[in-house]
Amino acid sequence: MGIADKINKERLREHFEELAKIGYISEKEGNIRLPLTPAERAAAELVKGYMESAGLETRYDQFGNLFGLLPGSDPEAKKVMSGSHIDTVINGGRFDGTVGTLSAIEALQTIKENGIPHKHTIEACVFLSEESARFGGGTLGSQAYIGKFKRSDLDRLKDKDGITIAQALAENGFDPDKIESVKGDPSKIKCFVELHIEQSIILEESGIPIGVVDQIAAPTNLRLTIKGRAGHAGATPMWLRRDPFAAAAEIVLEVERIAQTIGKETVGTVGEVYVKPNAINVIPGEVVLGLDIRDVTYDRKQAAVKHVLDFAQEVAARRHVTIDVDMIVDQAPEKTNKDIVSLISATCDKLGINHMNITSGAYHDALNMAAITDIGMIFVPSIKGISHAPEEFTPFDDIFRGAQVLAEVLAELAK
Amino acid sequence: MGIADKINKERLREHFEELAKIGYISEKEGNIRLPLTPAERAAAELVKGYMESAGLETRYDQFGNLFGLLPGSDPEAKKVMSGSHIDTVINGGRFDGTVGTLSAIEALQTIKENGIPHKHTIEACVFLSEESARFGGGTLGSQAYIGKFKRSDLDRLKDKDGITIAQALAENGFDPDKIESVKGDPSKIKCFVELHIEQSIILEESGIPIGVVDQIAAPTNLRLTIKGRAGHAGATPMWLRRDPFAAAAEIVLEVERIAQTIGKETVGTVGEVYVKPNAINVIPGEVVLGLDIRDVTYDRKQAAVKHVLDFAQEVAARRHVTIDVDMIVDQAPEKTNKDIVSLISATCDKLGINHMNITSGAYHDALNMAAITDIGMIFVPSIKGISHAPEEFTPFDDIFRGAQVLAEVLAELAK
Repeated sequence: MGIADKINKERLREHFEELAKIGYISEKEGNIRLPLTPAERAAAELVKGYMESAGLETRYDQFGNLFGLLPGSDPEAKKVMSGSHIDTVINGGRFDGTVGTLSAIEALQTIKENGIPHKHTIEACVFLSEESARFGGGTLGSQAYIGKFKRSDLDRLKDKDGITIAQALAENGFDPDKIESVKGDPSKIKCFVELHIEQSIILEESGIPIGVVDQIAAPTNLRLTIKGRAGHAGATPMWLRRDPFAAAAEIVLEVERIAQTIGKETVGTVGEVYVKPNAINVIPGEVVLGLDIRDVTYDRKQAAVKHVLDFAQEVAARRHVTIDVDMIVDQAPEKTNKDIVSLISATCDKLGINHMNITSGAYHDALNMAAITDIGMIFVPSIKGISHAPEEFTPFDDIFRGAQVLAEVLAELAK
Repeated sequence: MGIADKINKERLREHFEELAKIGYISEKEGNIRLPLTPAERAAAELVKGYMESAGLETRYDQFGNLFGLLPGSDPEAKKVMSGSHIDTVINGGRFDGTVGTLSAIEALQTIKENGIPHKHTIEACVFLSEESARFGGGTLGSQAYIGKFKRSDLDRLKDKDGITIAQALAENGFDPDKIESVKGDPSKIKCFVELHIEQSIILEESGIPIGVVDQIAAPTNLRLTIKGRAGHAGATPMWLRRDPFAAAAEIVLEVERIAQTIGKETVGTVGEVYVKPNAINVIPGEVVLGLDIRDVTYDRKQAAVKHVLDFAQEVAARRHVTIDVDMIVDQAPEKTNKDIVSLISATCDKLGINHMNITSGAYHDALNMAAITDIGMIFVPSIKGISHAPEEFTPFDDIFRGAQVLAEVLAELAK
């Protein structure tokens, strides 16, 4: 059969188990590896060690992205890239990002160990801060790689303590002033293929182990700052109130309602809220809401976002509060490359693995990479669709199967 | 005219300005003097100094309540008490509590300085933790004074860092094991009179400088812990969600709606919320809501609370989330003593000051003291009704007028 049979299942499992221990808090609290914190940096160093053991040429760029290169026989041939991320949300799981990262390294190691000839260079990559848990916006590493960031953007993105990403980079030995050097050269890249857990229930419910992603939904992330009038919870009559949290509650329910009604793939979430002063006997003066609205078509997503913002301003006028809107992320959905979709499907057929085309509701670094190269994505099942939570789970056999498909696909693309 | 003319207006103003500086953050952030923190203890020591300068016999009890005694000519006569509190909410104002505290001390000092004869001992008091900003429940000092707390209650009440009030007391040199000694002896107390800012707009809108409180509304404080299922904001379809924050939003709006409709004096507030994990791209797994519902009649308040809890369980069932209820405070409204109401009114008439009977929407230490003695309350206007906020404001002339009325009333009660 070739390379799929040569994947070292036990090594992949060991790497997976070892990486899962870093930033692990407890069964209930899961893992916390926020980008550019000691836990996440320790994970990066561990993975860099795996790359070195695999015989890859490793390097960090100045944004903290990590690369491991397996040179091809033709130095002029464009490179094939594959990878994912190793940061987590707060109280996240063990599978999101790590599955694709470790499978790419295992694929390259297997190709090298077995002397599989390949003209194209293959590069494993680990993008920084795919999650938005620390700096508000996600897929930061791949955005930097496709040249989306100017130096000034690195001062704009801040964590909750006011630390900018520029400061966090500098603290970890990276040079934010060299952000230009991070940019990948599109003329030298053939394609990017990412293996990832599905984070939904379609594969599990269908009983199919491999999803071939044909489109990736994209998010709009917004922060609304709602300002009303703080007051005494006992002494302020209802008709005198300008309660920003009651206004926020209306918006939360409208985000849910519009997402439920506008389209099957549309999702809307309010997962972040800050209330000031946050005391049981004080009417809040200010509330900040973090909104996430996603869809597979740009126009429908923008329609949902516009609806929510119009609704918010109607609430603001009616309740005599003010609402300021901060647009954090506004990305366009993408299709994956048709030829890569066909190749992944054909590879599954060859290996006798059931597969289906699937939409990615979550967005990934691949979404950014689509701006500079052809992309493909392979999904493995997430039990009960749970992700971004300690209960996130994918059976190891499914991970192994995904790594087999990835290795075959990368070897074929790099041939 | 007597004692009202002898109040030292400048001394009262200086004390007020000096106390306002303690725990002051900024114009926007106001004051923070949470009970048993260094800022609040510094304020207590400052006020103790004022009491000593006034010639009062000072003492702390083992709950951190502060007293200043002006002995009467008849040691057997029951004592007249007056005072308030000096702790603040987070980002509170300068007037709540301090006006009544400093006016009581000024009244006693004026009585002593001018050798006004009084048979009854008069005692100024500063009750600990009137606000609930640190330990969840408010009027703790006066609850301790009326004997409501057992030793075990002091381990039950905790701040956000898990520090119990027993620990916080011990850290400040008080002995939680001596909680029994804190209890005041009802047979030795004639009455308790508290001057306070109104914290609503009735006096200002009526153009009347003195409110004679005839009833005090009481709160029910509840914490609801809503547990759903955390998940990925992009990959979890709307129909798979068990979003506790959407459930919370429904409850927030229902608390508002029932308070608006059940009675004119009914108020309902959700001023406190904690969301886990609180990230923009994660459906929350758990939300904690702090509710405050108040009314001037116990039955109507209980009806509102029951309605909200029934509604919450209906929401829980429909949304497949669970809701646990923690009852923190459940107090009964009180009437003030009719004779003291008449005395305050007559005193205003004598001084040529307009006055009106008024309901206290906020609750006060006086509410607890009503369990062991006759109580009276005097209100001065709050501009725009704003309180528990940095913008809280009462013109100093109104404070002075309130102190004049208080001094006359205390002198008459102690005669």
